[in-house]
Amino acid sequence: MSMADSRLDAHRLRIEEWLRDCFRDREPRGDLYDAMCYSLMAGGKRIRPVLLMETCRMCGGDPEAVLPFAGAIEMIHTYSLIHDDLPCMDDDDLRRGRPTNHKVYGEATAVLAGDALLTAAFEFMLDPGTGLPPARALEAAGILARAAGGRGMVGGQVLDMAGEGHSLGIHEVEELQRLKTGALIAAAAEMGCVLADGGMEQRQAARLYAERLGLAFQIQDDILDVVGDEATLGKPVGSDAKSEKNTFVTLKGLDVCRELVAKLTQEAVEALSCFGAEGDGLRWLANSLASREK
Amino acid sequence: MSMADSRLDAHRLRIEEWLRDCFRDREPRGDLYDAMCYSLMAGGKRIRPVLLMETCRMCGGDPEAVLPFAGAIEMIHTYSLIHDDLPCMDDDDLRRGRPTNHKVYGEATAVLAGDALLTAAFEFMLDPGTGLPPARALEAAGILARAAGGRGMVGGQVLDMAGEGHSLGIHEVEELQRLKTGALIAAAAEMGCVLADGGMEQRQAARLYAERLGLAFQIQDDILDVVGDEATLGKPVGSDAKSEKNTFVTLKGLDVCRELVAKLTQEAVEALSCFGAEGDGLRWLANSLASREK
Repeated sequence: MSMADSRLDAHRLRIEEWLRDCFRDREPRGDLYDAMCYSLMAGGKRIRPVLLMETCRMCGGDPEAVLPFAGAIEMIHTYSLIHDDLPCMDDDDLRRGRPTNHKVYGEATAVLAGDALLTAAFEFMLDPGTGLPPARALEAAGILARAAGGRGMVGGQVLDMAGEGHSLGIHEVEELQRLKTGALIAAAAEMGCVLADGGMEQRQAARLYAERLGLAFQIQDDILDVVGDEATLGKPVGSDAKSEKNTFVTLKGLDVCRELVAKLTQEAVEALSCFGAEGDGLRWLANSLASREK
Repeated sequence: MSMADSRLDAHRLRIEEWLRDCFRDREPRGDLYDAMCYSLMAGGKRIRPVLLMETCRMCGGDPEAVLPFAGAIEMIHTYSLIHDDLPCMDDDDLRRGRPTNHKVYGEATAVLAGDALLTAAFEFMLDPGTGLPPARALEAAGILARAAGGRGMVGGQVLDMAGEGHSLGIHEVEELQRLKTGALIAAAAEMGCVLADGGMEQRQAARLYAERLGLAFQIQDDILDVVGDEATLGKPVGSDAKSEKNTFVTLKGLDVCRELVAKLTQEAVEALSCFGAEGDGLRWLANSLASREK
C-alpha cells in the first residue's frame, strides 16, 4: 500500500469510528436509532466522506475538524438507500448482502429512520460545537442541501422512477445519474475545499474530478450489474434488466461503457493537476474504482 | 379585528404568498413539485411561521427578512404530515378535507415529496442570498434541525406509533406530544428571537409561551376529535378512538382537558410579560387557539 492510498484508508477508518459513535448518547426512541445505525454501519465504501476529508486535507485543512460534515454526507447517502429500497419504490429485499432496512424494522420505522438520518445530517453540520467559522459551515451545509434535494439527488430519483419501463435516451440517463449519484459526490469534493477555505481554482478542480469520478462510478455499477459475481456484489446480478431500468449498458453496450469508464477516469485524474503530488490519493481512488469488482 | 390580530393575519398572508412562489423557478422533475405544493398549499393555520415572524418582530427584527426560515418550518411541518399519512404509518385518506398526498400522487412520489420538502427547508435557510449574518442563520437552522429530528418531532412520531394499541400514562403522552408537536412550535418561537438577535430573557419567554401554547393546542385537538363537527374539521371525528390512540381526552376526560387548555393558555399569556404590549398579538393567538372549533 502506497502512502497515498493508506491515507485514504485512514480517513475511511476514522469516519467508520465517528459514525459508529455519533448516536451513542441519544435516548433510544423505540428502535429508531437501531434502524438508523443498521443501515449506516452496513459497510459501504464511504467514498463521499473520504472524498470530503481528502479534498479538505489537500486544501490545507484538518480532516479531523470536518468529521461532522463527512458523517453528514454519509447519513444523507444512507437515508436515500433506505427510502429507495421501500416497497413503494424499488422494493428491494437485499442491500450489500443483508436484508434491507424495512425487512428488518418494518416500513414505518424505515421511513422514519430515513427521515431522522436526513435531519441528523443537518443537526451535526449546524452544531455550534463543530468550532468551524459559521460562514464556512453555512456554505458547506448549503451545498449539501442543494445537492440532496429536488434539484439534486431526490430529483434524480424521481426521474429514475418515471423512466422505469420507458426507454430513455443516453442524455436523459446521463442527466438522471448526474442528479441521482453525481450531485452528492460532487458536493463532497466541493465541501471539503470550502471547509478548508480553499481557493476557487482548487474548488473547481475538485468538483470536476468528482463529476467525472461519479459518472465513471455509475457506469461501472451498471457494468457490474451485468458481468459481476453475485457473491462478490452482495446483491443479485441482472436486477437492472429485470426492473427494466435504463442504464448506460442497456443503451450503449458493454464495450463502449468500458471505454467510457477509462476515459472518464483519465479526465478525473487530469483534473487534479493543480494539486500536484497532493492529489495522488484521489488519483489512486479514481483508478481503483474503475477496476473494482463490487 | 384589533391591531394585534390584524398583524398576525398580515404575517399569515405574507407567508402564504411566499410559499406559493418559492418553488416557481424550479424544473418540474415529473410531478415532484406539484406533489410538494399540493400539501404545502393545503390551507393550514400557519401557526409556526406566524409565530416565528411575530417573535422576530417583537425582538426588533424585520419579519420580511426571515421569510425563508418561516417557510422552512412550514415545509418541515408539511413533510411530517405527508409521511405520517402514508399507508405504512397512520394510513389516512383525508387531510384538511382533501385526499392525502399519496392518494393523489401515489406512495413513491409522496415519500419523495416529503424528503424534498425536508431538504428544501435547509436549502432555503442556508441560502447565501438570505443576507442574514451567518452565525445567526446557522444557529436558527440548527435549532430547527434538532427540533425536527430523532430528539424532537421524528422521535415523537416513533413514540406515537409504538404506543398505538397499548395504554400509555399521562406523562408518556405528554412527553410524546412535547416531541411530536411541541418541539417545532417551541423552535419557531426561539428561531424568531435568535434571527432578530433578541436577548436571553426574550428567548426564554418566547420558548415558554410556545411550549404552553403547543400543549394547549394538542389537547384542544384531542377535544375536537371527540366533540368536533366533521364538516368544520375536514376530517372524520372519533378517529383517535378508532385507531386506539392514547390522547389526553382518553386518559383524563373532557372536563379535565378543558380546564387544562384554559390553564395552559393562561400560562402562555403570562409568559409574555417581558414583551409588554408588543406581546398582544401572541396573547390573542393563544386565546383564539384555545377557543377554536377546527
